[in-house]
Parts: sequence; C-alpha cells; structure tokens
Amino acid sequence: MELLENFDEFNLLKYNPKGGKFMSYQYWKYETLYQLCIDAFQKFGFSEKEADIIQDVLLTADLYGIESHGVQRMVRYHKTIVKGMIKIDAKPEVVFETPISTVIDAHDAMGQLVSHQAMEKAIEKAKTSGVGIVSVRNSNHYGIAGYYAEMASNEGLMGFSFTNSEAIMVPTFGRKAMLGSNPIACAFPAEPYNFLFDASTTVVTRGKLEVYNKMRKPLPDGWALDKNGYPSTDAGDVLANIDAKNGGGIMPLGGNSEELGSHKGYGFGMVAEIFSSILSMGATSNYCMTEGKGQICHGFIAINPAFFGDATAIKKHFSSYLKELRESPKADGQERIYTHGEKEIAAIAERKANGIPVNDNTMLEILDLCNHLGLDFKNYFGDYMLSEK
Amino acid sequence: MELLENFDEFNLLKYNPKGGKFMSYQYWKYETLYQLCIDAFQKFGFSEKEADIIQDVLLTADLYGIESHGVQRMVRYHKTIVKGMIKIDAKPEVVFETPISTVIDAHDAMGQLVSHQAMEKAIEKAKTSGVGIVSVRNSNHYGIAGYYAEMASNEGLMGFSFTNSEAIMVPTFGRKAMLGSNPIACAFPAEPYNFLFDASTTVVTRGKLEVYNKMRKPLPDGWALDKNGYPSTDAGDVLANIDAKNGGGIMPLGGNSEELGSHKGYGFGMVAEIFSSILSMGATSNYCMTEGKGQICHGFIAINPAFFGDATAIKKHFSSYLKELRESPKADGQERIYTHGEKEIAAIAERKANGIPVNDNTMLEILDLCNHLGLDFKNYFGDYMLSEK
Repeated sequence: MELLENFDEFNLLKYNPKGGKFMSYQYWKYETLYQLCIDAFQKFGFSEKEADIIQDVLLTADLYGIESHGVQRMVRYHKTIVKGMIKIDAKPEVVFETPISTVIDAHDAMGQLVSHQAMEKAIEKAKTSGVGIVSVRNSNHYGIAGYYAEMASNEGLMGFSFTNSEAIMVPTFGRKAMLGSNPIACAFPAEPYNFLFDASTTVVTRGKLEVYNKMRKPLPDGWALDKNGYPSTDAGDVLANIDAKNGGGIMPLGGNSEELGSHKGYGFGMVAEIFSSILSMGATSNYCMTEGKGQICHGFIAINPAFFGDATAIKKHFSSYLKELRESPKADGQERIYTHGEKEIAAIAERKANGIPVNDNTMLEILDLCNHLGLDFKNYFGDYMLSEK
Repeated sequence: MELLENFDEFNLLKYNPKGGKFMSYQYWKYETLYQLCIDAFQKFGFSEKEADIIQDVLLTADLYGIESHGVQRMVRYHKTIVKGMIKIDAKPEVVFETPISTVIDAHDAMGQLVSHQAMEKAIEKAKTSGVGIVSVRNSNHYGIAGYYAEMASNEGLMGFSFTNSEAIMVPTFGRKAMLGSNPIACAFPAEPYNFLFDASTTVVTRGKLEVYNKMRKPLPDGWALDKNGYPSTDAGDVLANIDAKNGGGIMPLGGNSEELGSHKGYGFGMVAEIFSSILSMGATSNYCMTEGKGQICHGFIAINPAFFGDATAIKKHFSSYLKELRESPKADGQERIYTHGEKEIAAIAERKANGIPVNDNTMLEILDLCNHLGLDFKNYFGDYMLSEK
C-alpha cells in the first residue's frame, strides 16, 4: 500500500516538524491538471487517446495522495523522452502468445501505454480463459502499480501488477543494490469498495528518502544502508551513493537481518522480478536504466473469480471478511483499522472537494515545461504568481 | 523462507545462550524416522500410499531444518485425529472445475493428502492449459507451504502455495488476531538448484515465540503484541493470550506501525487469504480451529514457463540472475548472500550425513505414541534410554 506511505510523505513534505510550513503547496482542481496533462502529452507527440491513458495513471496517483507518482513526474518523463530513453513512436510487439499468456517487447515505449495495453490483454484472456498473465520487457517507468491491478478489479476480476526498476534494494547480507523497489499490487472486487493492496517490497521507496533529505532529518532506523552495507540514517549520503552506484541502498521489507524478516522482503522482490523480467526474458533490475536504456519489465495477471464458482457470492464472502477486519477491536490509542484501498477512496473524495496539492518546485518546473512546449501557463493556472513564492 | 527462521529456531532450541546445553537432542538416520512415520501413519488408519505422502511432507521439513513442522508434529496430528478434527476416511470432493481451476472441499481430510492431490491437479492443468489454480476449503494443517510449491518446480513449473490458519496475526492498528501466519511459498526452476521462497506473512511464526518462552528469554522488539495491542516482549503472556483468545498475537511482517511497513505484511497475508479461503468460499482465518473444526483453507498455483517462450532459456536466464545475486558484494562482516532455496540444499546434505535431530521431549511423545499404537519403540530406536535423560 504505497498509498499509506505516501500520505505520510505528503504530510512530511507540507509541514516542518518544528512548526513552520516547510514547503508551499497550491491546490488545483482535478480538471485543471487534467487539461494540462492532455495538452502537454499531446505536445510531447502522443495521440489524444494515448495522452488520456497517461494522464489517468498520473492523476490517479495524485488523487490517491501519491504525489511522487503524479503530475510532478511529467517533467521527468519529458526529459526521458528528450534523451531518447522513452520512444514516442514505439510499437510494442507481441512476441509470444497463448490463450492464457502473452509476452510483449515494448521496444522502449512509454511505460503507461504498454502497461495499459498489457493489462487489457490479461483482462480479455481472464474473461474467456479464466486467467491472463502478461509479461513485458524493454519498457519504462509505469507509474503506480496499483493502477493496473485496479483495472482488473473494475472488471470484476482479481488483478496483480508487478514491475522491476533501477536497482535500489540491497539483498540480505549484501551491500550492492541488486533489485528494484519491485512493487506488488493486488486488487480484488469487494463492497463497498474494492480491495487494493500496492506495496514496494523494499521497506520504503526512494521518494521517502528524498523527503527526509529535503528536511535534513535523520532516517528512521531500519530503512537504508551505506556503501559498506551498514545501516545508515544519512539520507543524503545514501541517495548520493545510489546515484553514483557506489553501493548501499534501501533495505528489503523486514530490514537487513533475518530477525525481522529481511529475507522475506527480498523474496517478495524476487517474485516481482520473475513475473517482470524472467518470464519476459527481459533485463533484471541490476541492468535497468543503464547505458541510456530503461529496459524496465512488468508483469500483469488477471484471474476470473467466476472460474471458481459464483462470482457474486465470492465477492460477498470477501466483503464480509473485510468488514470484520475493519470492525475488529482496535489497539489502545487507535481509532481505525483500515482494509487496503480504503485510504485511497477517502483521498479521492478529499482531493476532488479540496483540490490536488502541487508543490511550488513542481509549479516552477511546469511553467518551464509550458514555455518549452509553447503552452500558455496562464490558461491553466491564471494569476498564480510564481515570482511571489 | 520459513527455513531461515527455523535454522535459527533450531539453534536456539539446542543451546542455552548462557552457555550450557539447553535441551538434549538425539540424531537419527533419515531411514529410521521414515520407517517410523510409515508404520505410525498406517496405524492411524491411512493407506501405505497416504502414509508415504504424509511422511514425505514431514521429513522434508526435518531435512530442511524446520523442526516445528517435522516428525514432532506426528503426536499433534494423532491428537487431532482422535478428536475427530482430521477425518481419516474423508473423501475430498471437487466442487467446481474448469481447465485452469479447481475448488475442492476437503471434508476435514488430512491437510497433506488433500494438498498433495490439489497441487497435482494444478500441475496437470499447467502442463496442458498453461496455468492451474486450485483452492481448497475445510482442510487441516498442511505442513510446510514450500513442499507443494516445490512439487511444481520439480516438474519444471513455477509453483505457489498459500494457506490460512488459526488467527495469530493482528492487523495494523488492531489488537485481535484476524489472520493466520498465512505463508506464501513460491518456487521456480533454476540451476544448480530451484528457487524456493517460503515465508509466513507474520514477522515470525508461533514456533519462535514458543522457543523464547521455553528459554525464558524476552522476545526481540517488533514481534508480538499484548492483549491491548501494545508491543510485548513477554512470550509466555502473548502465547497465553493467543490460546485464550484474549487479544494480542504476532505482528505482520513489517511490525505494528506503517514506518517499517506493517500494512505490507498485513496485505500479503490478505493475498494468501484470497487464494485460500475466499476463492474456495471457505472459512477465513478468524473462523479456523473453532467449534472443533479445522476449516483451514489452502491455495495452489502452477504456471508453465513454456507458455511464455523457451522454458530452457527462461530457466537459464533466471539462473544467471541468481548467480549474480550470490556473487554480488557482501556487507562488511558477511561472507555469503543466499538465494532462496540454497540453505535447504545445504541442510539436506548435512542431515543426510549427520542425522536428523529430534529433541528428548519429542522422543518421549513418540515412545508414548508407539505404546498407544502397539509399535515397538526399540525396533526404531534400539537402546536409546529415555529414562536416562
């Protein structure tokens, strides 16, 4: 549930724990950001339909409160396109296919586009054959893993989404990052809202280290390793080492010793790797983002509950259990037990009512991007005066 | 990788950290324990073929060093049979089936037997259809999750095994156990040995708490909760509360706060629950082992790599990555990075050479069981004199 993490991250970004406001945020209507994305992605060279898919993945992240994967990524994607790592005119190719499986070579396509296509294929196969498993190689960053899992649950199916990424997870007893943050997302239909679990298999994602670094706050114990494999609380040093590939990185879920289950986070990371890079014969995380190529791999699964009995009864059975979980006794001092997906529902309502927060650094980048693309910044953001910030 | 956990556990059981030997162990040949199991399970009322399946699951655990799931379980299984929770003559029934899926009602069968049958079905389907997913309800304890995942990898397939169990995991922010230890095992063919990942989705299993309790040692931080949902290091108190269903239990992988990813272990536990109790319309963990019924549910998946391309090339690709992981730089002070499944291979060799350790408490229980079943203890264990212990 990257979402829980990022709620946190968002709050950390907004407020300095010592009292004052840490970073200034503007709140924008969903529709404003939607129009910006549609226009900008078309200026990048994508078709209107493609722009619509990309904006939906990004703005869903923003609506969920996962700022790190929202509109603020737009500028990074633009840079990656300019560098040629993402190819606008890539034609993803089906290189192997059966009634239950597909392997796609993305040929450096935009991650969201090939992933959307891949999950649509998995869904189609699950509807007719009961299961669809699609493995994708040579792609790029695909946004939030949960988006694709949710595509399946919106169709009444169980969905899984996996991706590898630039190596950032140090395996148990190691000192060099060899796996990505390798998220696993799982969605399943339920009432009153679908189950949606989306978790990096590292203890936290890189975004959190960046937040602590900006705040010049020491990292909590159990998150990161220095270049020699010792635990480190120095966010700046860890990030610099990751970028320079000096060693060190983020610990697996479960930390860096077996006592709290480091080998388990590392193992779940391997499961993500198998569905992404192994079945597709693509690059494993330790080769992603090297030599000017993304080479990122993804995996998608859709499973049809109707192939196990009465899908409506199964959904009801699961919904009852989720309700029991939410209504089970709370720890002293806690008011609520969440089931996965609940926080996202709350976040959407809050953001549709109060706007989506975009920080001033991102606004500056967007201004710059608009100028570069020949879009009129004022058309979207009116009198928002960056110079006053 | 329950195995890693249990290596630890085994060492803890053997030696008192204050120096003296804590508990006495006898080492027995694999063949001796094999014959005992075959004879005893037939005396329980199982056929020779059934006895052979059950012993193989148990002795594989012992060979892997997972003492808690090995021959020491034999007496507990006997008690459960006498109580009528496990039914010797149960006839598991296929209640739903398609070319890629099966739902089985175990009708209170021995967990190992219905699980072996279920994974065989999954394997058969994967060979012809590419995937087989089997969900089982109304079963009993099935032993180590990894056993069934490995059945698939031994056939050149990817395998998953899941089970729920008596509630022991407290969801994030809760104080009542609502999920089981809910292991997820995943196996995939590789050289020189298959990848085998087997992990409870709790930070540790109940067995570890029992070991600390026997040693009267405080639990490490981050393992357990008291009946009010506060972290506790008192193993005896936590175990008593679990048994009396007073509240408290074991934390999810990731602990009890979101900082280290509690919601992630809780989410992976939910994934195990979906494949086990939800797709089968069986009892969720919070209803298992109540009212004199086991009602435990399992899930099994087999996936055929040949439905994604050249299975031999895929295996080679994965084997290269595993080698790179093992050979990647070690943290200061560490000599080895393991890939999942390696420790088990080493343990088998060691135990086949030096014998399988069985502690004296278990030997006493076995003596008692032999007397009860009309088996001659000396036929297996010769002059081993329990009275001297």
